[in-house]
Amino acid sequence: MSLRGLGVDPRCRCIETESRRIGKHIESVELFPPNPHCKDTEIIATLKGTGKEICLDPTAPWVKKVIEKIIANKAP
Amino acid sequence: MSLRGLGVDPRCRCIETESRRIGKHIESVELFPPNPHCKDTEIIATLKGTGKEICLDPTAPWVKKVIEKIIANKAP
Repeated sequence: MSLRGLGVDPRCRCIETESRRIGKHIESVELFPPNPHCKDTEIIATLKGTGKEICLDPTAPWVKKVIEKIIANKAP
Repeated sequence: MSLRGLGVDPRCRCIETESRRIGKHIESVELFPPNPHCKDTEIIATLKGTGKEICLDPTAPWVKKVIEKIIANKAP
């Protein structure tokens, strides 16, 4: 779940991703498309309360479900 | 495309949304699910280069397409 330094070191932001389904703890989700510095999409969730940032696995079905729900105007 | 003050005033963040298809200018997209302060999902894109934040319409087909592409590990 650790994040590499943000903005200073232009590589991927995520080293590990969260495997537990934390949908209901999510305050927001940020999607970073592939770019010259990082060839894979990265998804970073900000948690309610603590504001902690956690990397999610873009290929995990539960993560796709969370995003679908948010777009459908539902809480994850 | 203006954003209400962030974090100080707990209401919706977006007043207007961008209608032009700006997919290729998008550096990241943040999704805010419905919550006690704002009953609708909000989507805020950060633009490449300027880092400017722009609200997108969660119901617009092109916005959904952008998010689908990012999740499918493609640039929007």
